[in-house]
Amino acid sequence: MFGCSEIIPAQPSGWTEIVPGVWKTIIGTPDRIDLFSTAGIKPAADALTKMGTREFPFSESDIVTEVINGETYLRFPLLKDEQIFGFGLNFKTVQQRGKILQLHVDHYGGTDNGRTHAPVPFYVSDRGYGVFINSSRYLTVYAGSAVRKDSPSAPEPLDRNVDTKWTSQPYSDAVEILIPSHGVEVYVFAGPTPLDAISRYNLYCGGGCLPPRWGLGFTQRVPTLYTSEQVEQEAEEFEKRGFPLDFIGLEPGWQSKSYPCTLEWDNKRYPDPVNFIKKMKEKGIRLNLWTNPYISPASPIFSKILPFTGSHTVWGGVVPDLTIPEAQNILLDQIERDQVTLGISGYKIDECDGYDRWLWPDVAKFPSGNTAEQMRQIYGLLLQKLTTDLYHQKNTRTYGLVRASNGGGSSFPYVIYNDYYSHEDFITALINSGYSGVLWTPEVRSSKTGEEWLRRIQTVCFSPMAMINAWSSGTKPWSFPDVEKEVKEYALLRIQLIPYLYTAFAKYHFEGIPPFRGMDLEEGFNAGVKMEIKNRNLNDNPYAEAIQKEIKDQYMTGEYLLVAPLFTGQTSRKIVLPKGKWYDFYTGKYAGAGEVITVTPGLSKIPVYVKDGGIIPMMKPALHAPVIGQKFDLEIKYFGSKPGNYMLYDDDGETFGYENGAYSWREIKVVIDKKGKFSGIISKAEKGKPDNVGKVTWKFMSVE
Amino acid sequence: MFGCSEIIPAQPSGWTEIVPGVWKTIIGTPDRIDLFSTAGIKPAADALTKMGTREFPFSESDIVTEVINGETYLRFPLLKDEQIFGFGLNFKTVQQRGKILQLHVDHYGGTDNGRTHAPVPFYVSDRGYGVFINSSRYLTVYAGSAVRKDSPSAPEPLDRNVDTKWTSQPYSDAVEILIPSHGVEVYVFAGPTPLDAISRYNLYCGGGCLPPRWGLGFTQRVPTLYTSEQVEQEAEEFEKRGFPLDFIGLEPGWQSKSYPCTLEWDNKRYPDPVNFIKKMKEKGIRLNLWTNPYISPASPIFSKILPFTGSHTVWGGVVPDLTIPEAQNILLDQIERDQVTLGISGYKIDECDGYDRWLWPDVAKFPSGNTAEQMRQIYGLLLQKLTTDLYHQKNTRTYGLVRASNGGGSSFPYVIYNDYYSHEDFITALINSGYSGVLWTPEVRSSKTGEEWLRRIQTVCFSPMAMINAWSSGTKPWSFPDVEKEVKEYALLRIQLIPYLYTAFAKYHFEGIPPFRGMDLEEGFNAGVKMEIKNRNLNDNPYAEAIQKEIKDQYMTGEYLLVAPLFTGQTSRKIVLPKGKWYDFYTGKYAGAGEVITVTPGLSKIPVYVKDGGIIPMMKPALHAPVIGQKFDLEIKYFGSKPGNYMLYDDDGETFGYENGAYSWREIKVVIDKKGKFSGIISKAEKGKPDNVGKVTWKFMSVE
Repeated sequence: MFGCSEIIPAQPSGWTEIVPGVWKTIIGTPDRIDLFSTAGIKPAADALTKMGTREFPFSESDIVTEVINGETYLRFPLLKDEQIFGFGLNFKTVQQRGKILQLHVDHYGGTDNGRTHAPVPFYVSDRGYGVFINSSRYLTVYAGSAVRKDSPSAPEPLDRNVDTKWTSQPYSDAVEILIPSHGVEVYVFAGPTPLDAISRYNLYCGGGCLPPRWGLGFTQRVPTLYTSEQVEQEAEEFEKRGFPLDFIGLEPGWQSKSYPCTLEWDNKRYPDPVNFIKKMKEKGIRLNLWTNPYISPASPIFSKILPFTGSHTVWGGVVPDLTIPEAQNILLDQIERDQVTLGISGYKIDECDGYDRWLWPDVAKFPSGNTAEQMRQIYGLLLQKLTTDLYHQKNTRTYGLVRASNGGGSSFPYVIYNDYYSHEDFITALINSGYSGVLWTPEVRSSKTGEEWLRRIQTVCFSPMAMINAWSSGTKPWSFPDVEKEVKEYALLRIQLIPYLYTAFAKYHFEGIPPFRGMDLEEGFNAGVKMEIKNRNLNDNPYAEAIQKEIKDQYMTGEYLLVAPLFTGQTSRKIVLPKGKWYDFYTGKYAGAGEVITVTPGLSKIPVYVKDGGIIPMMKPALHAPVIGQKFDLEIKYFGSKPGNYMLYDDDGETFGYENGAYSWREIKVVIDKKGKFSGIISKAEKGKPDNVGKVTWKFMSVE
Repeated sequence: MFGCSEIIPAQPSGWTEIVPGVWKTIIGTPDRIDLFSTAGIKPAADALTKMGTREFPFSESDIVTEVINGETYLRFPLLKDEQIFGFGLNFKTVQQRGKILQLHVDHYGGTDNGRTHAPVPFYVSDRGYGVFINSSRYLTVYAGSAVRKDSPSAPEPLDRNVDTKWTSQPYSDAVEILIPSHGVEVYVFAGPTPLDAISRYNLYCGGGCLPPRWGLGFTQRVPTLYTSEQVEQEAEEFEKRGFPLDFIGLEPGWQSKSYPCTLEWDNKRYPDPVNFIKKMKEKGIRLNLWTNPYISPASPIFSKILPFTGSHTVWGGVVPDLTIPEAQNILLDQIERDQVTLGISGYKIDECDGYDRWLWPDVAKFPSGNTAEQMRQIYGLLLQKLTTDLYHQKNTRTYGLVRASNGGGSSFPYVIYNDYYSHEDFITALINSGYSGVLWTPEVRSSKTGEEWLRRIQTVCFSPMAMINAWSSGTKPWSFPDVEKEVKEYALLRIQLIPYLYTAFAKYHFEGIPPFRGMDLEEGFNAGVKMEIKNRNLNDNPYAEAIQKEIKDQYMTGEYLLVAPLFTGQTSRKIVLPKGKWYDFYTGKYAGAGEVITVTPGLSKIPVYVKDGGIIPMMKPALHAPVIGQKFDLEIKYFGSKPGNYMLYDDDGETFGYENGAYSWREIKVVIDKKGKFSGIISKAEKGKPDNVGKVTWKFMSVE
């Protein structure tokens, strides 16, 4: 209570609509550093204006804010059966109501407690609004889990002695958040649907990222000590065996020293980077480089950057204070000169998330005066922003990997990954990524059996990055001969789907719609959610904990595809089909409508369904994504029974020309004549706009 | 950086020796509420003076302290191979160097991350000093795990690409602590040995607790909905079967409503508490009552206490602000009138540790103005202090159970317990309790097999509270007929050991020596500690984590006994014997000296060894501990080959008379004549001092 003490009036500065459907308020005295300013967001004002405005989703008096002794208290209302989603990259559940989280950038440790790679302080309600807390602190969140004495809807206490309805989690009517700071900026995003609120959030962050076309191909990361020769052999092996490959990831061994890093090539393993990169490019294969941000005394930039580093080291490496322009320039100058100008296509930015001792301690101090806590919350964002800007200056798109992100990062072309390896939880994370403006890959590293290998490959091919990460395992797509054929089929299917996936990402960029999304965002989906006490034996379950029963193992990919993975040991599974008719992606057969079906697809298939009227533009199987200027033929598949409509996106696939209008949207229509015959038409690209489509063939899959 | 900002000079107010061997400093502006003031410690000045003084263990310039923008940074030096212990009730390791902890009162969740029932901010060095941070905040601790750029002993960075000596945990030369407060009080306790530092800490807290004699007997907690009749039958069953029993614990069902609590008897299950308690007392059995601090609207004190409660409820119960005298009095008045005056012997105070939603949220506010964080850190201490004082006013000792404690609690007669149930980790917790001034019971609840049941019973009989907690399992000591005989043997052995254990607690009280201690505190013990990478496969162990190899499954009980439990599945184990000769407790046979032995004791025995010259005063087997005024015969067992010396403590066993000198220390000596014949003598109690010893017999166990 002593020390510095202040009370700020309970009401915020008032809610200002800064662009249509987006409101902002300032409470107390916010920190100098926050998430949006760190990410340097450039709101897509036109797209937001096009979405139009809505009523402010709350009665302002229902929002309570206070600053007491240097801490900010926020409270937002929750209706009785309202569901909320988000709060970053969680792995166990999609619905977040009832949670207690401390949003804290960290390696995911197996519990949804807020410590994760992207603890984005953004949540979305099924009532169709979103709330974002623009803070760089560790936030403590009670997502409908704190019950106030004065709550008008406070639950009746029950007698646990005799009342079986007793619960350790009684009803709470609010989201409450504690911010260890004298103030904060808060944003509210309008609906009407939850997806609209997410789209507004993404658009406000500048729109989702648009990867280069090659980024949607297949990628393999090689063992850490591979030499350039071995990498070339690996690429040849892929070609010889007919496996697609668009980029290869080099792990720590490309650097002369790692953990901490020199950020320069190892001249034994990589004696001639220039020609190596050139040769690989000619083979149609780009290179991605692993790194972490800790600078080794053996690095050429060590002494230059030393004055701009934090008080503590990580494995003896110094930690650049990347909020300082000098530090930014020294780091960027090194990777630009040494790698990017040579044609390196992007980075895998490791060790910026935590796992505590794999990062600076909270007692560290930085020359900028930002606290270690703030630096930890924003560092992943900073690294993405700096490298994204570097590639932007070169008018070349990048697509990389990162271990940490946070609010405001939607526009960065980075996919989050980690060392956790639960296949089921990886899929739940993929679903949750769509609620938080981040991308996630359920990367495939190793497997105990061919079954596990194929199941993991099937899902990673329906994710933002189709990747095998063999840095330590040395696995290849063909490592399990018993499923090699099926693995190849899915790797090639991934390539065939590039036109569809690329368009999905374009919609992420221009409309804010996540390319990979949870079912709860799909119209006509209603699985509801139950709390269920699985184990009433208080010896085994002393807290009488209820488990949330919800759908967290199926998701939407792009506009029309519903993906329902199977996991090792499963031979059949239930799938919840939203309202409207759904069709089997492989056969076109009618699967069901607004119902729960049970399928037994066999090991060789991952169940995928298409919405009625769905149009899926596909390329021919190929070993690489089309490069700039390369035409590709389209086979347009149509599914269902009602007229279909689809907008196909196109641009050069590699530059930022699209920012200056160098892109096209082509309308694809499927109509049905009186005799029930299907026919399709595709509009021409506007004059002077990109058109990479060659021959177009049609396939009407409908089988009733 | 904005909001309130202040920098306090880097050096503390200076270290003042407040009693011999105890130094204090004040940094910045400490919070109004801290641990020592909450516990209301009364330092045992005489005992501390008797220990004398020492040199301040640091060079003051090696201690760095700062207050920056409302946060306090502390740094204490660590020598190259220095080991540190403590930081509260950890479950996985004894040595704490290398840890990163956030000291945060909580249910232990299976990871040593600082969230535990007693996150005591006190650590002890094997160099013989202790450091205590007197803060009621969540403290972030880097216990030799943060490496500074400017450290004179900063480790050389290694190249992980090729150097197998690379480690994710490089050498750190400091303990660094971050306190989210404008200041803090810090204490340093002198040695010369680590045990001296711990003793000084305990004595400064008022000395360790001295339980009533009956508290060291055997206790059973009955199923939650038991009626007074069933409890009486249970007691008779114990007697009939010849199992000792000193007190029975009643679980939530004794209250008319629970979770939240009414704090009054249920008149159906307990129609006549007065006579019930009286009857049980006549049988020699006391009663302990479960409760938690959350007050039900149905409680008689609800409306009275309401004005002094926090903003949030727990399962609909209000949370008394127990830092406010009115709240204290209302609560104490109820339990005194309704229970204590009736003869209830003590309480089991549940749900004051957390598990988050089993406690108020961090966004709660309290009328005293203390934050929810501070209340959480001190609430267990408060509940112990208030009830301890209540019994003290009645000049009757109590001995109870509590879920949460913290620094300053050494003198409270409470034993910590929880819902976690790893037998191995329970023993490590027992060891760690001795480093933190708290007591811990590895309570027995249920078991899958007779083997597990017996192994758990064997260890709980060598712990501060020999308890079966059957609140949910309904188990009895005889639940596993295949081991009933052995269980009874150990329950009776527990009773026989009361004179020895009681003296051990007297030494805890008068000299600060923990009755249950880790081996590292034992002279001549040197097992060292290694870090070992168990799994070098980076797929399974991506962080290349090293596991600490140390002795965490054997411990000292009282002055002479070394206890080395076996766990389910084990048939043999290694035991590290400190320097000097050690003897088998059961046979007196020589076991070894300063060496590692391997034993195969069979299921019926828990290995126990006695130090050379050890004297163990034992009672005859009995069903109850001696009551006030009751004489008991002694069989004094002697072990070894060299003259023995022991001080036996005695007092009335139930009142606080010992605080006014009503106690005695009687010297027991064993001498060896020229022929090698042993003989023993016990001194008389001083005139007018307690003497409850009847007939004394001797047993010289030595068999070389």
